[in-house]
Amino acid sequence: MRTYLDCIPCFLKQALWASRIITNDEKKIKEILDEIGMMVKDIPLNSSPPETGRLVYKKIREMLGVPDPFKKIKEKYTKIALKLYPFLKKEIEESKDRLLTAIRLSIAGNVIDFGADREFELEKEIYEILKKEKKFAICDYNKFKEHLASTDEILYIGDNAGETVFDRILIEEMNPALVHKGGVNKPTTFVVREKPVINDATREDAVEAGLSQVATILSSGTDAPGVVLKTTNKEFRKVYNNAKFIISKGQGNYEALSEEKRPIFFLLKIKCPVIAKDIGLKDGDIVLKGINI
Amino acid sequence: MRTYLDCIPCFLKQALWASRIITNDEKKIKEILDEIGMMVKDIPLNSSPPETGRLVYKKIREMLGVPDPFKKIKEKYTKIALKLYPFLKKEIEESKDRLLTAIRLSIAGNVIDFGADREFELEKEIYEILKKEKKFAICDYNKFKEHLASTDEILYIGDNAGETVFDRILIEEMNPALVHKGGVNKPTTFVVREKPVINDATREDAVEAGLSQVATILSSGTDAPGVVLKTTNKEFRKVYNNAKFIISKGQGNYEALSEEKRPIFFLLKIKCPVIAKDIGLKDGDIVLKGINI
Repeated sequence: MRTYLDCIPCFLKQALWASRIITNDEKKIKEILDEIGMMVKDIPLNSSPPETGRLVYKKIREMLGVPDPFKKIKEKYTKIALKLYPFLKKEIEESKDRLLTAIRLSIAGNVIDFGADREFELEKEIYEILKKEKKFAICDYNKFKEHLASTDEILYIGDNAGETVFDRILIEEMNPALVHKGGVNKPTTFVVREKPVINDATREDAVEAGLSQVATILSSGTDAPGVVLKTTNKEFRKVYNNAKFIISKGQGNYEALSEEKRPIFFLLKIKCPVIAKDIGLKDGDIVLKGINI
Repeated sequence: MRTYLDCIPCFLKQALWASRIITNDEKKIKEILDEIGMMVKDIPLNSSPPETGRLVYKKIREMLGVPDPFKKIKEKYTKIALKLYPFLKKEIEESKDRLLTAIRLSIAGNVIDFGADREFELEKEIYEILKKEKKFAICDYNKFKEHLASTDEILYIGDNAGETVFDRILIEEMNPALVHKGGVNKPTTFVVREKPVINDATREDAVEAGLSQVATILSSGTDAPGVVLKTTNKEFRKVYNNAKFIISKGQGNYEALSEEKRPIFFLLKIKCPVIAKDIGLKDGDIVLKGINI
């Protein structure tokens, strides 16, 4: 997805929002906004928003002198999600369609997003998406099932810490032997950010969520809040270019990959009017959308 | 009112919003945002927002090469309001408290604000404020009446074009002989912006609304979207410093004057969460607030 004009004020809004979570030093935050303001002229509208997001959050980290400003928040939400884990697994057990329920849960977890410039309530989200069976705005579930059945491995591009626990549940459902239900596993690679950016999951965060028990964790090499391919490492690109079944979680990865030519299933909750417009949907919608399939 | 950190992204959002009304040249708008981005570092947090607004909208005018980009919009809303005028006068005639109804109307007209970065529906606003008698969040109406009774002249600081027709109705109600109800008039000075800024009323716009029939029109000398005193001319400051009864319309004038020491009644609808917080109220509230009285 390209950068829209509406993204420009939003970069400053996000920088303000993120900085405020980390510090209440108004003078310092103003200095950060001054710097982001000066970056505006260097934002090409044909780049994807996470390319700029990468520079914005890097600047915030540098200016605050904190390499992982969201560390505590990431730990907090991983813990909250791990505490919910048994309850969520029970929901899966009791559901009519385990895979669809796991997909729903993984999208509910996508609300744990500190780059989205809005408040959220995780339990309310789970209630609405899972219990009230919120309708998908796009639901390529049949295609998802078909492609999953015909693939022997999965590339799962993760998004936020805490959400990772929800991703783990979906990975478990796609790997039946992992949950003692027999069947053949599909070796899964779970992709994380190389360096901390907002509350996006790094290797450490993914391990805390228990993902190393169900998948091979691979760093994409990027510190952008989305797998902007030109900022990823060779290893990731090799895996990505050969993958037959790719799951991409969240907005940042959608923005980075929406115009790519690989077979990708995007799983996300839309939390931004610009992305909503780009994808042709409404803010708040939940999406399971396959491309190039 | 000082500039809050939240105002910084909002200046870019306003610039985008205003530019889009005038042009659909995306490249040009990006160039405008680039310039506004570079201005961020020069915004002092102890200045009032209209001081920066002045520079932002000046830059937009210059870069678009249009001295009065909102001219047509101003004419349109003046015409719409003039068309409503007989109906609004009838509402006054039929009301229990003519002055309060006129105040309500003048606040309803304050919704015609193209600097507020949001859509509005004038007739809905009139319906809610007038017909549904929307409650004032602050209502210093008794003090307003007392001070009005004891003054022999009125300084009325206007805001937007179109809203001016609503101001005219309030001025008429404060000058009974004007509307053939007997009593003594209180010579009124209606203050306009010197140069066009957003859809704020200039002398020309005020004349179109019929204000020269009921008041002496005086330019404040400013091209800021609020009477930022240091940008006003000597003549205005002399009148202002000697005025015993001052009405200030809208957000921009509130931002410019809220910390002043003169007796001022602010009449406005709050259309911004930051102003809401500053004044201790909620976004959407309507206000008749007197200071130094």
